[in-house]
Amino acid sequence: MTIDAVLSHIDDNLANATERLMEMLKIPSISTDPAYAGHCEVAADWLVADLRSIGINAEKRPTAGHPMVVGNTGGKGRHLLFYGHYDVQPVDPLDLWSHDPFQPFVEDTAKGQIIRGRGASDDKGQLMTFVEACRAWKAVNGSLPNITFLFEGEEESGSPSLVPFLQDNADELRAEIALICDTSLFSDDTPAITTMLRGLVGENITVTGPVRDLHSGLFGGAAMNPIRALTAILGRLHDENGRVTVPGFYDGVSELPPEIKAQWDALDFDPAQFLGNVGLQEPAGERGRSMLEQLWSRPTCDINGIWGGYTGDGFKTVLPGKASAKVSFRLVGGQDPQKIRASFRQMVRDALPPDCSVTFHDHGAGPASLMSTDDPAFEAARQALSQEWPRPAAYIGSGGSIPIAGHFQTILGMDSMLIGFGKDDDQIHSPNEKYDMSSFHRGMRSWARILDAVAG
Amino acid sequence: MTIDAVLSHIDDNLANATERLMEMLKIPSISTDPAYAGHCEVAADWLVADLRSIGINAEKRPTAGHPMVVGNTGGKGRHLLFYGHYDVQPVDPLDLWSHDPFQPFVEDTAKGQIIRGRGASDDKGQLMTFVEACRAWKAVNGSLPNITFLFEGEEESGSPSLVPFLQDNADELRAEIALICDTSLFSDDTPAITTMLRGLVGENITVTGPVRDLHSGLFGGAAMNPIRALTAILGRLHDENGRVTVPGFYDGVSELPPEIKAQWDALDFDPAQFLGNVGLQEPAGERGRSMLEQLWSRPTCDINGIWGGYTGDGFKTVLPGKASAKVSFRLVGGQDPQKIRASFRQMVRDALPPDCSVTFHDHGAGPASLMSTDDPAFEAARQALSQEWPRPAAYIGSGGSIPIAGHFQTILGMDSMLIGFGKDDDQIHSPNEKYDMSSFHRGMRSWARILDAVAG
Repeated sequence: MTIDAVLSHIDDNLANATERLMEMLKIPSISTDPAYAGHCEVAADWLVADLRSIGINAEKRPTAGHPMVVGNTGGKGRHLLFYGHYDVQPVDPLDLWSHDPFQPFVEDTAKGQIIRGRGASDDKGQLMTFVEACRAWKAVNGSLPNITFLFEGEEESGSPSLVPFLQDNADELRAEIALICDTSLFSDDTPAITTMLRGLVGENITVTGPVRDLHSGLFGGAAMNPIRALTAILGRLHDENGRVTVPGFYDGVSELPPEIKAQWDALDFDPAQFLGNVGLQEPAGERGRSMLEQLWSRPTCDINGIWGGYTGDGFKTVLPGKASAKVSFRLVGGQDPQKIRASFRQMVRDALPPDCSVTFHDHGAGPASLMSTDDPAFEAARQALSQEWPRPAAYIGSGGSIPIAGHFQTILGMDSMLIGFGKDDDQIHSPNEKYDMSSFHRGMRSWARILDAVAG
Repeated sequence: MTIDAVLSHIDDNLANATERLMEMLKIPSISTDPAYAGHCEVAADWLVADLRSIGINAEKRPTAGHPMVVGNTGGKGRHLLFYGHYDVQPVDPLDLWSHDPFQPFVEDTAKGQIIRGRGASDDKGQLMTFVEACRAWKAVNGSLPNITFLFEGEEESGSPSLVPFLQDNADELRAEIALICDTSLFSDDTPAITTMLRGLVGENITVTGPVRDLHSGLFGGAAMNPIRALTAILGRLHDENGRVTVPGFYDGVSELPPEIKAQWDALDFDPAQFLGNVGLQEPAGERGRSMLEQLWSRPTCDINGIWGGYTGDGFKTVLPGKASAKVSFRLVGGQDPQKIRASFRQMVRDALPPDCSVTFHDHGAGPASLMSTDDPAFEAARQALSQEWPRPAAYIGSGGSIPIAGHFQTILGMDSMLIGFGKDDDQIHSPNEKYDMSSFHRGMRSWARILDAVAG
């Protein structure tokens, strides 16, 4: 059977595939920091060259931000679009990394080999599982199915160029179904197709008080301190039951359908272990909700960063002129990102004490998405995954936001199959990010099986 | 008359005195940042050399931190101790300085000449008013009164070495009265002797949640965010009337004696102008208190710095592992610094949500001080000041904390006359610090007159 030959080819060439991933991980393609723009170009060039090495017609396409990489196999059969992103998260706090984030290496651990480095899991390692599956397929079969590739370089910074690019190139990119590799396994043994994704609203807020930093002795007690104003507002974003206090925040949030809740309740999920892995014990979300609901089907608010005044060693009795924070909301169901942004801004303005002013900066927004599993490709892919892994594949939700799936629906009119091989302990967005060698290896094999099942 | 000759000598040598101050301002003696320790040594050496150039027997004395400079004139008459500090505040945010903070220069403005640079007012320019007055006195009279000099290098970082140094050298340092030059004029025309100083408690607080930074999509809604915990606590440190909510905070705070309140109410103080100078309009302290009470005789709490999570450009959807703040309390009357520190810590611990832990770092403490004006030197100094300036000198309070005055009382058994020539718009602790040339010039002349009146 052809598929067995492809799987054997993947097994025999794992070392070469790992070597290629290492090359790509050395490129510090941090999209959110303008200082790394040149490295994003290098990562895009690397992908173009790699796709061409498999005989795929690929090129870099300029945008207002970092470039897209688009490729096409020219193959026959059902048209698939594969999406991944080559940009990575910033690396700070750098002092918490055990090694240089951009000098990746393979580490032997008690639980098997892992690949360490920024982007190993999110998303370079993941997207290469698909590219390597295609490489093996081509080597065995001499040609590839009908696949279009789309690699983005701004996923970690809100994808500002994505919507216009999809709109301008809709005819070229529209396929029958999209494959997205940027999600996790449900557990070490259980693969998953993610059909429910939370949306996101990102805001930067700066509260200004005095026109300059003041001495807290000379002015303290008379002058408003903007850190006091900011903490008073942010400290009231959650009520005593863990609910978000922004007016109208829960508009459009529905209860989970009973059949989905039953399916989730049946999953082998251990809240104590999930939290215990990161040193926690108590669920911090809405009271009375299961943890999978808190993570997948309930909206949240997090303060992702805060800063103001003197933050160095020692002490400085300053009464600062301004204070800032980055705040994000994860959305579900029918929550309207723009309404929530507007309501949050109004809530802040209403709570601002005299003599303070506030400025906001929009860091992007996307609604939640829900995939229909009516297309037989979903069930075919689920069967294919179930053949590769110890336990059958599950349809699950995800707390993370992958706005691309929503854009594929609204702009290109196609659903997405979100299949990935990350693990909860991959430390994506954190120091010492890693990707299990088993995720990389079985990921490639999984895609080969899915292509075999779906691309006919 | 001798005093007229001394004053003339000061007038004739103003350019030289300014040049010496410029030399000293070029030394970046930031005490709170260990990277600048070597520069603190250089500043101490500079002062030793300068005192010796006037024939004063001076030397650098080691401490566990930055050195003290101690000098003695060997003169006769009433024994005076003069105190100043040669260390300066950090300079961040550096991008708000119009020039290099350690490349001082004289600037012509519509209101006269000013000396720009970190430390120009706090406290290098101020301490040099006294040194230059002594230099002129010596040049005219050939000898100096009985003065001991004490210059500290850790005033801006909580003076950790000061108490042990005073205890170990009490016999050498004890005088009949201390002169401290680290305060402000009451107004451009009105000099002041500060007799009431607020105390200070400094705390660093770090709240820890998860053992590492998390992805807010994967964990948001289930994992406690320590910025949420920290802002919820700090955002409740003031009630709706501007009062501090730490339990027992107002224990030991008395109402202002009516005669002092009457004297303060009679001062030519314009709250609207005071706040307007820094872009504010509304008093932010306790409701129902005059602004001079809010600044001088009421205790306060300020958050001097806060930081946690991602604070760079762009956006990062991190759920951070920890968040920190620097908090200070200004104390009055009989407030006990250690009780307030303990009560604050208990309040934080009590308010901490599950899964968070907290660590505290003590950044120093000192009680408020009140000087007795019974010693005739006070009235003699007040008359001397009144001769130099357009309006009579006033006894006032100060919002700032100068713990040295309390230590002189408790360890050396002497009161202090706090006389300085700073102005509210000197931007001490802020970018673009300055000292008016008129403060520098009249400050020297004021000290010459005070020596003439007091040192007999």
